[in-house]
Amino acid sequence: MKPRAISESAVRRLSHYLRFLDEFEAAGATTVSSDDLAEKGGMTSAQVRKDLSRFGSFGKRGLGYPVDELRERLRQILGLDRRWRVCLAGAGRLGAALYQYEGFRRQGFDFVAVFDRDPAKIGCRWGDLEVEDVARLAEVVADRGIEMGVIVTPRESAQEVADLLIEAGVEAILNFAPKKVSVPRGVTLRDVNLAIEIEGLSFALTHAGEIVIAG
Amino acid sequence: MKPRAISESAVRRLSHYLRFLDEFEAAGATTVSSDDLAEKGGMTSAQVRKDLSRFGSFGKRGLGYPVDELRERLRQILGLDRRWRVCLAGAGRLGAALYQYEGFRRQGFDFVAVFDRDPAKIGCRWGDLEVEDVARLAEVVADRGIEMGVIVTPRESAQEVADLLIEAGVEAILNFAPKKVSVPRGVTLRDVNLAIEIEGLSFALTHAGEIVIAG
Repeated sequence: MKPRAISESAVRRLSHYLRFLDEFEAAGATTVSSDDLAEKGGMTSAQVRKDLSRFGSFGKRGLGYPVDELRERLRQILGLDRRWRVCLAGAGRLGAALYQYEGFRRQGFDFVAVFDRDPAKIGCRWGDLEVEDVARLAEVVADRGIEMGVIVTPRESAQEVADLLIEAGVEAILNFAPKKVSVPRGVTLRDVNLAIEIEGLSFALTHAGEIVIAG
Repeated sequence: MKPRAISESAVRRLSHYLRFLDEFEAAGATTVSSDDLAEKGGMTSAQVRKDLSRFGSFGKRGLGYPVDELRERLRQILGLDRRWRVCLAGAGRLGAALYQYEGFRRQGFDFVAVFDRDPAKIGCRWGDLEVEDVARLAEVVADRGIEMGVIVTPRESAQEVADLLIEAGVEAILNFAPKKVSVPRGVTLRDVNLAIEIEGLSFALTHAGEIVIAG
């Protein structure tokens, strides 16, 4: 069967819906409508219904979606009904910040290894972990069943470390290095380029009153 | 005149084109075609031409774009032909990592203030800066002509600090707190939710072979 295609932004919207459901649940709601979800996200309710209907039918016509059911189903769809073993490639400041970032652990992502090639960093303790030599990456990935890699190296090391991760069998990479890395078909790469995010602001201020950024 | 609309992803593509041009320039190219740019970005050349033609006409038919000219023009369009004064709201680990992140400074974004409300942090030196009491935010924003704010507080403080920034006249906010904040019309908000980025990976691994994420 040919795989279906979905856009990165559609996947991102599913993550947002899940957060909205968490908020509705916290506020004591037991059902929500596509209008409720759309309002929180600033999108149309048709978009919400379309996004959800890709994954089956939820709720009853006119009655909305049961919050707990839809929340559980979205967690399954996003792969959040289990825990994931993740390694950090790069033991610099950004790596340290991500290691401590509670949002990852809360959603099921556990850092089980940190690598660097700097002898001054190798052996340093990071909480329960010890920074390990990147030369041991393949071995550690296999031993600990690591499924995802987060690249936080300087730009010049990004491709090399991506290649190491992929060779070791890692099929999903989050890249924070400000450098485009190539990955073969079958490997999922998501880039987080922090400078590109802030450039959205300078663009907006430069064109204020003349261009609006929508969606 | 009614402002034109542009999508967030189109603005992001402009940032990517600029990076591709930097790479072409570093490789010694003097002209590039829309095909060259499209190939680097994994998009169609029609998309590249459409994105660029929004901002005027570049290059000569059949001759491609002159790299230096298009690069300069994209820098102007993105507001990167000047420097921007930015404050960090939150002096935690993520703030420290962003403060050191060279990609911001390189593109023209200077952190000129760091705020926190924790008395243990206020007064600490961060390079050339001193962590300041968030109670002084409005005053400091006015004194130093701060135009952008980066929120790196815990989630429960995000809205409060966004409100402070907006009251102080800041019209562009980059929010790293895992919390949706509301901003009035005319203020540009961009959210970077790191957990949502990694959820793109768990989604992909969960649906491997069955759904592909495109674009």
